[in-house]
Amino acid sequence: MRIAIIGGGAAGMSAASRVKKLRPEWDVKVFEKSPYVSHAPCGLPFFVSGFVRNLLDLCTYDVEFFREQRGIDVHARSEVLEVGDGHLDVLEGGKEVSYEWDRLLFATGARATPLNVGCEDVEGVLSVHYIESGERVRQLLSGSERVVVVGSGYVGIEMSEALSKLGMRVTLIERERHPMPEFDPEISVILKRKLEEKLDARFGEKVVSIRGKDRVEGVVTDKNEYDCEMVIVAVGEEPNVELARRFGVKLGKSGAIETNARMQTSVKGVYAAGDCAETINLVTGESDWIPLAAPANKMGYVAGVNMAGKDMEFPGAVKSMLTSFYGLEIGKAGLSEREAKSKGIDTLSATVRMKSTATYLPDGDITLKLVADRDGKVLGVQAAGMGVSKRIYAAASLLFKGSSLKDFFFVDLPYYPPQSRVWDPLVVAARNLFRKLDVP
Amino acid sequence: MRIAIIGGGAAGMSAASRVKKLRPEWDVKVFEKSPYVSHAPCGLPFFVSGFVRNLLDLCTYDVEFFREQRGIDVHARSEVLEVGDGHLDVLEGGKEVSYEWDRLLFATGARATPLNVGCEDVEGVLSVHYIESGERVRQLLSGSERVVVVGSGYVGIEMSEALSKLGMRVTLIERERHPMPEFDPEISVILKRKLEEKLDARFGEKVVSIRGKDRVEGVVTDKNEYDCEMVIVAVGEEPNVELARRFGVKLGKSGAIETNARMQTSVKGVYAAGDCAETINLVTGESDWIPLAAPANKMGYVAGVNMAGKDMEFPGAVKSMLTSFYGLEIGKAGLSEREAKSKGIDTLSATVRMKSTATYLPDGDITLKLVADRDGKVLGVQAAGMGVSKRIYAAASLLFKGSSLKDFFFVDLPYYPPQSRVWDPLVVAARNLFRKLDVP
Repeated sequence: MRIAIIGGGAAGMSAASRVKKLRPEWDVKVFEKSPYVSHAPCGLPFFVSGFVRNLLDLCTYDVEFFREQRGIDVHARSEVLEVGDGHLDVLEGGKEVSYEWDRLLFATGARATPLNVGCEDVEGVLSVHYIESGERVRQLLSGSERVVVVGSGYVGIEMSEALSKLGMRVTLIERERHPMPEFDPEISVILKRKLEEKLDARFGEKVVSIRGKDRVEGVVTDKNEYDCEMVIVAVGEEPNVELARRFGVKLGKSGAIETNARMQTSVKGVYAAGDCAETINLVTGESDWIPLAAPANKMGYVAGVNMAGKDMEFPGAVKSMLTSFYGLEIGKAGLSEREAKSKGIDTLSATVRMKSTATYLPDGDITLKLVADRDGKVLGVQAAGMGVSKRIYAAASLLFKGSSLKDFFFVDLPYYPPQSRVWDPLVVAARNLFRKLDVP
Repeated sequence: MRIAIIGGGAAGMSAASRVKKLRPEWDVKVFEKSPYVSHAPCGLPFFVSGFVRNLLDLCTYDVEFFREQRGIDVHARSEVLEVGDGHLDVLEGGKEVSYEWDRLLFATGARATPLNVGCEDVEGVLSVHYIESGERVRQLLSGSERVVVVGSGYVGIEMSEALSKLGMRVTLIERERHPMPEFDPEISVILKRKLEEKLDARFGEKVVSIRGKDRVEGVVTDKNEYDCEMVIVAVGEEPNVELARRFGVKLGKSGAIETNARMQTSVKGVYAAGDCAETINLVTGESDWIPLAAPANKMGYVAGVNMAGKDMEFPGAVKSMLTSFYGLEIGKAGLSEREAKSKGIDTLSATVRMKSTATYLPDGDITLKLVADRDGKVLGVQAAGMGVSKRIYAAASLLFKGSSLKDFFFVDLPYYPPQSRVWDPLVVAARNLFRKLDVP
């Protein structure tokens, strides 16, 4: 059997490794446009800040490893131009080559959403979606003092911190009134204060144009103008689905490729996994686009098992996320109240602000919001402050198993005064919602 | 209705508060032997180390708060001598008084297990089970240079660290070959090395006697003799059930009071909660004695709801625990492999040692062991190293919901390079066990 995988990122390499493990005799080819495989762009802010020295450190393994240790026929610097029934056309080493396949995987990932204000291709304006962007940002740093970061999602926030710690004067521009639109204002306002303390942070401002000829000179918004030598565009991402669309694979509502639990697309023998594919949101039970690293790896794993002729189902994800800004942790699993309401769900919520550890120990506060429906099913948890990651680990686990407020109240979390509380914020938030549901 | 609660600790005060909240007009009396209520002995090591200044800071609220804010008739320094049908005899203010009750709660807690080698009542030998012990340890510190800590459970370990950080020469004596007998050797050996690095730690030694007349002078084991000015006995604890036994309440196999999910004992109208009561171990499905602070509080809460004539069930606990020693975190939820085997379960296990965060970031290692049965049901997780607490939070949550290896593999934990890994140690350990169960 001939297996072709388009994209050598997390999903693609997980799938390739799985197929080769289960079917060592099969021919497994991976086509990757860049020189890098199993690249982990989540680490880019740490490369930019100088914390990680070598770009290759952001790749779990290199091409040679996959070729020699795992027997995968990796084609790096190899761009797939077109996919046809049982074959595909690739541009590699300057010439077009055609390969045949029996089973195919789209693992084409996502790309940064452009600002669409023009001048985005001028020197000094870039996104940090691809591993190569790390090198470009580092090169640009030497001639720069002022940088404008557009967008305050986790990429914008992590890049702002990295650049600010390097001594750059960072202006962060966000169209909305609060950062991180996936969060409700009770939580995002805490991050907002921290951003305003550490950076020149502007909310409710929309970028209307970028100035500059040979190199970027400034950013113009609907309210102000900011001179700068570098612009980081971090206004979101979108699935890379052009090849799949042209090939005729069905796309979902989100624009990403529709898949079933075995990661099969609408076309027999053709699979999709990772940031280009839809999966099930376990909280809503509906198809969703969840472009995050951990589910991408597992979707690839499951696709690989099924492409190898075995059987495994990917259950879906709860959209867990975690980041931080100057020591303030921010995390979420499941839905925000706004996201739940936008789906027509009648919600209840409780927000607690308390110490993250035993009251008598000098650790910081955590603010945690828990959202449930009127039947007592928990829909999501968001938090900001100290000790956030362990609460999101627990919340993600409970949401993954479809838990109720009673589960969140009775869950037996460990108590150790320097690390936690005997009545954990998750437990207190659940208890506060008991009142609204007439639980004694 | 007249409610009598014996014991003003976590369970007792939670129950009292709940009854009074739901039935403000009822008479709720709490009888507490010590001057302290809602005392949290888990904080004692932090009081001893001087980190917490005031013993009262270890009590969530004081007697006045419960009297004035919650309307609870708290009798501190009040020792219950005997319980009879509908009445109890109390020693308070030097005289015996009798009170009547319609519903009764045993919240008598646990006490330190004695060494039973004689001389344990000599000055300088003490356990740190009760809040008052904190003051005694601090008083003894001034005349002491050398302390022997007997027992290496979490109390022994936390006290050893506190005393060692105060400049005391600490000898830790443990009868077993490894510290923390609830853990399997793969995990406890990591703690053992750290103990040996920081203290004079002796394993496989049994204390045979204590020397001293007016004040302790030394500890004699089956192998050595240790001069010292203070001995901390931390060899375990046992439920305080004398009153309940004499009253005729049925005890369980563990020796603690048998209860059902509503925290009712074998006697109508009589309840038990906290460290004196049994509950369900959610992993085994059997009755178990789980004397830990978080379940104790919730058992009290549930007992209070039911004593107030409402209905609530306590589902049980998974025995989550967490501690640390000089920065090494140690945690567990569910069963160790040895515990599972001792129940006749045919087990599988995987131990992984890996970095706790993204490989390119300079954080430490975590060693994590996952135990499952042959049907793929997960029985327990133990870990030592860095980043342990979040993994135990997730493991406790998944075990609480009765999860399989597939759940542990697919659970959607958040990925943020400085805090976690894209393939979390929990996920990797579960995947390693797939092989033994023929999961592709």
